[in-house]
Amino acid sequence: MTTSHIISTTASPASHEPLTPLAFLERSATTFPEREAVVYGSRRSTYADFEAEVQQLARALAKTVEPGQVVSFVAPNTPEMLVAHYAVPLIGAVLNPLNPRLAGREFSYIFEHARSQIVFVDSEVAGVVADAAASLESPPAVIELIDKEFGVAPTETLPTYTDFLAAAGEQTTENTFSYSVADELAAITLNYTSGTTGPPKGVLYTHRGAYLSALGNTQHYRLDGASKYLWTLPMFHCNGWTMTWGATATASTHICLRAVRQDAIWDAFEQEGVTHLCGAPIVAASIIEAERAHTLDSPARLITAASAPPPSVIEGLENLGITPVHVYGLTETYGPATINEPQDHWAQLSVTQRARQLARQGVPMLQNSQVAVVDPDGNQLPADGVSQGEVVIRGNGVMAGYYQNEAATDEAFAGGWFHTGDIGVQHPDGYIQLMDRLKDIIISGGENISSIEIEGILHSHPAVADAAVIGIADERWGERPVAYVVANGDLDLEQLRELCRSELAGFKVPDAFYLIEELPRSSTGKIRKTTLRQLDS
Amino acid sequence: MTTSHIISTTASPASHEPLTPLAFLERSATTFPEREAVVYGSRRSTYADFEAEVQQLARALAKTVEPGQVVSFVAPNTPEMLVAHYAVPLIGAVLNPLNPRLAGREFSYIFEHARSQIVFVDSEVAGVVADAAASLESPPAVIELIDKEFGVAPTETLPTYTDFLAAAGEQTTENTFSYSVADELAAITLNYTSGTTGPPKGVLYTHRGAYLSALGNTQHYRLDGASKYLWTLPMFHCNGWTMTWGATATASTHICLRAVRQDAIWDAFEQEGVTHLCGAPIVAASIIEAERAHTLDSPARLITAASAPPPSVIEGLENLGITPVHVYGLTETYGPATINEPQDHWAQLSVTQRARQLARQGVPMLQNSQVAVVDPDGNQLPADGVSQGEVVIRGNGVMAGYYQNEAATDEAFAGGWFHTGDIGVQHPDGYIQLMDRLKDIIISGGENISSIEIEGILHSHPAVADAAVIGIADERWGERPVAYVVANGDLDLEQLRELCRSELAGFKVPDAFYLIEELPRSSTGKIRKTTLRQLDS
Repeated sequence: MTTSHIISTTASPASHEPLTPLAFLERSATTFPEREAVVYGSRRSTYADFEAEVQQLARALAKTVEPGQVVSFVAPNTPEMLVAHYAVPLIGAVLNPLNPRLAGREFSYIFEHARSQIVFVDSEVAGVVADAAASLESPPAVIELIDKEFGVAPTETLPTYTDFLAAAGEQTTENTFSYSVADELAAITLNYTSGTTGPPKGVLYTHRGAYLSALGNTQHYRLDGASKYLWTLPMFHCNGWTMTWGATATASTHICLRAVRQDAIWDAFEQEGVTHLCGAPIVAASIIEAERAHTLDSPARLITAASAPPPSVIEGLENLGITPVHVYGLTETYGPATINEPQDHWAQLSVTQRARQLARQGVPMLQNSQVAVVDPDGNQLPADGVSQGEVVIRGNGVMAGYYQNEAATDEAFAGGWFHTGDIGVQHPDGYIQLMDRLKDIIISGGENISSIEIEGILHSHPAVADAAVIGIADERWGERPVAYVVANGDLDLEQLRELCRSELAGFKVPDAFYLIEELPRSSTGKIRKTTLRQLDS
Repeated sequence: MTTSHIISTTASPASHEPLTPLAFLERSATTFPEREAVVYGSRRSTYADFEAEVQQLARALAKTVEPGQVVSFVAPNTPEMLVAHYAVPLIGAVLNPLNPRLAGREFSYIFEHARSQIVFVDSEVAGVVADAAASLESPPAVIELIDKEFGVAPTETLPTYTDFLAAAGEQTTENTFSYSVADELAAITLNYTSGTTGPPKGVLYTHRGAYLSALGNTQHYRLDGASKYLWTLPMFHCNGWTMTWGATATASTHICLRAVRQDAIWDAFEQEGVTHLCGAPIVAASIIEAERAHTLDSPARLITAASAPPPSVIEGLENLGITPVHVYGLTETYGPATINEPQDHWAQLSVTQRARQLARQGVPMLQNSQVAVVDPDGNQLPADGVSQGEVVIRGNGVMAGYYQNEAATDEAFAGGWFHTGDIGVQHPDGYIQLMDRLKDIIISGGENISSIEIEGILHSHPAVADAAVIGIADERWGERPVAYVVANGDLDLEQLRELCRSELAGFKVPDAFYLIEELPRSSTGKIRKTTLRQLDS
C-alpha cells in the first residue's frame, strides 16, 4: 500500500539550494551591475562595485580567518559595515556587529565570549576598542576603519582597513568566493543583546532565518528596485532588522548615514529621494519637527518600533507624505517579528482612532508562524484583549539560540516558543498589544499596572511631547507609578492628573508628575527606565 | 580548536518551521478575515469564508483519503479549484489539477499513474472523466463540481460536491486541521506535463518549493494587500504559476474566471479594479483589441510568458496603463523561473528598442539561483549572446522530480541542473534568450535556424498580427523554414520576404509565406507547431 503514497521527495542539487541572503547580492550584482547600490556622501558605488568590495574583503579575511570563526565590526552605518554583512559570511565566518557606544569592559567581554579573530573599528572609538582587545589573554587583531567622508581623524597607530584590503590581491576566477552555502542552518551573524541583568547574550542568526526574514520585511514594507533605503536604523542592531540583506534582495539603493541627524535625513529625502527608512518614533519626531520639513514629492514609508507612534506623529508623518508602519520585535527575532497590518476600514477612522489601532504591535510577519500570550505555566491565554501574559513567538524569524548559553536558550525556548519577556494581551482579532516589559510592570496592591497604558493617556494630551511612567517603591502598596513628561508648550501638571483620573482606574493614576527636559533613551530609542528610577531614588 | 568555531546551529521548534504555502492562508484568514478573498460572478467570499471552505473540504476528504494519496481536480478557474489547492495538502494529500480539455485516454492514463483516490470534475467534462475513471481496474471515486454561476447543467447521475461536503459535518476545535507541516520536502501537488513524445510525466512540487516560488513571484510582480489578481492563467497550469498560493500570501483578492473572454476580462477591470493578471501574449492582444479598451484608472501589470510580447502589444498595453512583465519557465520550474528585469536606462528607449530588450527571457527569479546555457556534454557556454545551447536552471524553484520516473528525472537533472529542452543564448549581461525549442529547431544544410528569430522579424512588420515559423522536410537541405502569418490589415507577402532578406542571413529566409486566419494554440497559449506541420504535409 505504501507505494501508492507520495510521502516525501528527495533533495536534488538542481532543486534544493540552501537558503542564504548572500544569494541576493549575487543576483543584484549580476542583474543590475550599474545600478547604485550604496551611497555615502560623495561616495557612490554601483552593485558591481559593491560586489567587488565584498569579494576583496572576503579574500583579505580568508588569509587569517577560518570558517566558523567570528569577525567583529564596531562601526556606525558606513558602507564598510554593509560590505561586512556579505564578506564575512562569504568565507563561512560569522559577523559580530557592535555598537560603538559600548563601554570598554563590554567590548572585552564580547570579544572574549565570541572569540573574535579580528576586530574592525571606526576611528572614533578605536582607542577604547584597542585597549579592550589588548586586555585579553589572546587579543584579536584590531584594524582601524577610517571614515574620510564624515569620520574623525585616524589614530595613526593602528593597522588600517586599506592596508588590510591591499593584502587581498587581485580578483581572479580561482579566488572568487561562491555565494552558495552548504548548510542553511549555519550561523551568519552573532548579535549581542544587553539583558536587564547579567552579561550580554550572543544571539545567533542563521542563513535560513536571515533569508526568510529579509524577504518577509521587504514584502511587508513594499521595497522594489526603485526604492531608496535610508540607514537611520543602526546596522549593529539586529543587522539593521535584516534590511542589510533585504534592500539588496530587491536591488534597492542603500543610503548610508553615519549619524541620525535631522539635517542629514532631510538632505537624503531631498537629494536621494528616500522611499523607506526605519527607526524609533524619535526619528519620526525629528523628521516632523525639522524647519525644512515639507511634503515629499513621492511617498515614503517609515517603519517604526520600540514604542507606538502617538497621534501627533502619525498625523505629522502623513502630512509629509510618509506612511508610518508599526512593527515589534527583539534582537532574538531578527528585529521585527510582528507588524500592525492596517485593516481596510481603518482608512475611515479619525487620526486619534487610527493611532489607537496603530498602537498595537500586530500580527506575525510572513517569516513567523504564530504569536500568542501565555501565563507563567506556558498556557495560552484567551485572545480577549484583557488577559495579560508573556508574549511568545515562533517561526523562522526566531534566532537559533544564545551562543554558548544552553541554559538561557532552553529558558527562552520553553515549550517550543520564544519567550519575549514582554507582557501583553491578544485582542479578539489576533493582534497583540504590549502592556509592559516583564521587568517594568508596576505591581501595586497586588494589581498589575501597565506603564504603557498610562503613557498612552499622557501622550494623548496636546501639550505632552514625550512621557514615561515608572514604578517606585512604596511601603503601603509595594509599588506606585510616577510619571515623567516632556512638555510641548505650556503644560499644567494638575490638568494632566485630571486627565488620568478621567481615563484610568484610580489606583493607576500616578502619585507624582514630573517635568523633565528630555527622556533618557538607549541608542535604539528605548526609554531607559532604570535611569529614571535612579533619578527618583 | 573546534570549540572556537560556530559551524552550525540546531533546529528548535521555536525557530524552525517547515516552509509551506498553507501558512499563507492561515495568516491571511486570521489577519484579514473580512477582506474579500475570492470573487466569482455573484459569489464573493471573505478570507474567513475561504478558510472555512478549505477546512470543510479537508474534513470531507479526510474521511477517505490518506496522507500521501492523490486527489485529482478537473476544472476551470473556479473557487473550488482554488479551495482544493489548500484543502488537499492540508490533510497531507497531494493535489493533481488537470486541464478539462484533455482527452479521455489522457485522463485514464493520469488517474492510473497517479493512483488518484478521488476525482472532482466540472459538469462540462463530467461524462468524459467518469468514463475514463470507470475504464480503470481500481476506479477512483468521481465527484461532480456543479458551477451554478457560469457552468453547464449538471449530469444528475454523479455524486455532487455539495453532497460530498455535507459529510464533513460541523467544524470543531478537534477537527480543525493545522496549517503546519512536518516535512517541507513533502509533495504538495502533482502536475502532469505533456512532452513532445511519450506519455505525460508527473511533476512533483514540494511545500518548500511552492512557498519560495510563491513569495518570489509576488515580490517580482509587486502584489500587496490591495491587489486584485485576475485568474486568466489556468490554475491547472503549474498551479497558476504558484499564484494560487502567492496572491493569498499577500492577502490579495482572487478574481476567478471560468473562461478567458475579452468581455469578462474587461468586466473584471471595470468592476473589480484588477491590478494583476498572467497569461500568454494572446491574452494581452485580446485585451488591447477589445472595443471597450480604455486607459485604466489605476495601473496594472500583465505577466506574460510562452512567447515574447511584440512591440505592438507592449505599446498597446502601456497605452492602457498596463505594464507588461515577461517571464519564462516550464511546468518543471513551478511556472516562471526567469524574469526580464527592466534596466533603469530602458525607460529612455523607443518602444521598438524596448521590445527587443523585453523579448529576452531574462535572469533567475529570487527563488532560483542560476540559469545557464550548456552544450550537449553539459559544459557551460560563454555568455556572448551567440553560443547556442540548452537552457539549464537550478534553484528552489525547480521540481523535486518526475513521479515514479527515475530515468526521466535523472536525465532532466543531469549534472545537477534542470535541463529545459529549450535552446537559447546567454547575453553578456546574463540575460538568457530563447532561440528555439530543442525539438522545434530547424536544421538546414547543417546550420541551425531559429524559428523564433524569424518570427521576431515577422512580428516587427506593422501589418503582421501573429506569426509562426516551422521547418518542413526538404530533399536538398534536410529542412527549410516556412512562415505562417496572420494579417493585420493589408499585407503584401512579397514585402515580408523582402523584410526577411534585409534582416536575416539568406539561408534563414523562409521558402514560403502563408496567410492564415488564426494560429493553432494550446490552452496555455503556445503555438501548436505540430498542427501547422500537418497543414503543410
